[in-house]
Amino acid sequence: MPSAEARRATRKPARGATVAHAPAAKGALAKRVARMEGQIRGIGRMIEEDRYCIDVLTQISAVQAALDKVALGLLDDHARHCVMGAEGEQRVDRTNEMMAAVGRLMRRG
Amino acid sequence: MPSAEARRATRKPARGATVAHAPAAKGALAKRVARMEGQIRGIGRMIEEDRYCIDVLTQISAVQAALDKVALGLLDDHARHCVMGAEGEQRVDRTNEMMAAVGRLMRRG
Amino acid sequence: MPSAEARRATRKPARGATVAHAPAAKGALAKRVARMEGQIRGIGRMIEEDRYCIDVLTQISAVQAALDKVALGLLDDHARHCVMGAEGEQRVDRTNEMMAAVGRLMRRG
Amino acid sequence: MPSAEARRATRKPARGATVAHAPAAKGALAKRVARMEGQIRGIGRMIEEDRYCIDVLTQISAVQAALDKVALGLLDDHARHCVMGAEGEQRVDRTNEMMAAVGRLMRRG
Repeated sequence: MPSAEARRATRKPARGATVAHAPAAKGALAKRVARMEGQIRGIGRMIEEDRYCIDVLTQISAVQAALDKVALGLLDDHARHCVMGAEGEQRVDRTNEMMAAVGRLMRRG
Repeated sequence: MPSAEARRATRKPARGATVAHAPAAKGALAKRVARMEGQIRGIGRMIEEDRYCIDVLTQISAVQAALDKVALGLLDDHARHCVMGAEGEQRVDRTNEMMAAVGRLMRRG
Repeated sequence: MPSAEARRATRKPARGATVAHAPAAKGALAKRVARMEGQIRGIGRMIEEDRYCIDVLTQISAVQAALDKVALGLLDDHARHCVMGAEGEQRVDRTNEMMAAVGRLMRRG
Repeated sequence: MPSAEARRATRKPARGATVAHAPAAKGALAKRVARMEGQIRGIGRMIEEDRYCIDVLTQISAVQAALDKVALGLLDDHARHCVMGAEGEQRVDRTNEMMAAVGRLMRRG
């Protein structure tokens, strides 16, 4: 079995290579994430102000839907570039890794 | 059918009455939400820095699990105080409303 | 801490008492479940016949949505009858138990 | 835009080609599905016999977890064979299709 160091090296493509996202897609993702940060802050404020629980839960569901969309966007990009762009054994490893991530997303954590 | 105004009035218990959470529980929830805000900010930074997608997805799954916990905490408090504390028709309405919220949480948004 | 036996006794209302569902609701649930059984059998057949994976996955998503609906129906009935119909400590216990079930449904198992 | 007929033809690999699963994996999946069919039948019986709702919900969560596993197994096989085995435009189409399926699984239907 390779050392953790070695596995990490194989697993992570060099920066700026396959991982760099198209600037447009990256900007859109960053914007979504910034919006979510605001939504979470709003949820904190609602709790602080003793707002009606059901209204807070509705906001939480909205953030969950937004997180799912960001996750799908990243996964899509990852499948196309990092997984399909790889060859041989590395592609097998990355497919395993991607499927494990899909499993965590389905079970939520 | 009652006006939206009237429905809102029936639905929302007066502030500071049934909705006010025990200070301890509220503090714990607020702390969790503050931590999630930091996690989301971290996710934004990871995207900005072109970090490996799978690592970003792992963070997203962690926030989803944290959101589920906050949602369950609020739901629990709501069931105990706002739903069971109500009587007659109002209790029926609030149970309907709570079940709709559970459905949204199960479907995530 | 009470023995498992004792906990079980407190937890489960006597049969035919609070648990009996209204015949109409029960019939509707039973029909949904019978339909799901047919859907699952169909999924087995699709796999047997090497049908296109995406079509099988679409059927699986449909069964998941159907299971969620049955679960929500049972939960609704349970909240109204077994939880709210209980008093004092038993109500507290059943609320805990119901929230644990909601948590499992949110995390799917 | 191609006709529905044409799209179907592109989308679905010929039978016995990329879609045929390794007999071992297929047998394991078929076995899992058969077990789920029995679990669903058991759920129907529990409802019929007015069994305690929380126990029925626990069984439902177990089937959901089992369905997720079957779905992940199919998805994994599909990614490796049907998506990565494709070339050019067909690979793009199948990746889109696979990501849509992942989205449905995350939202459950």
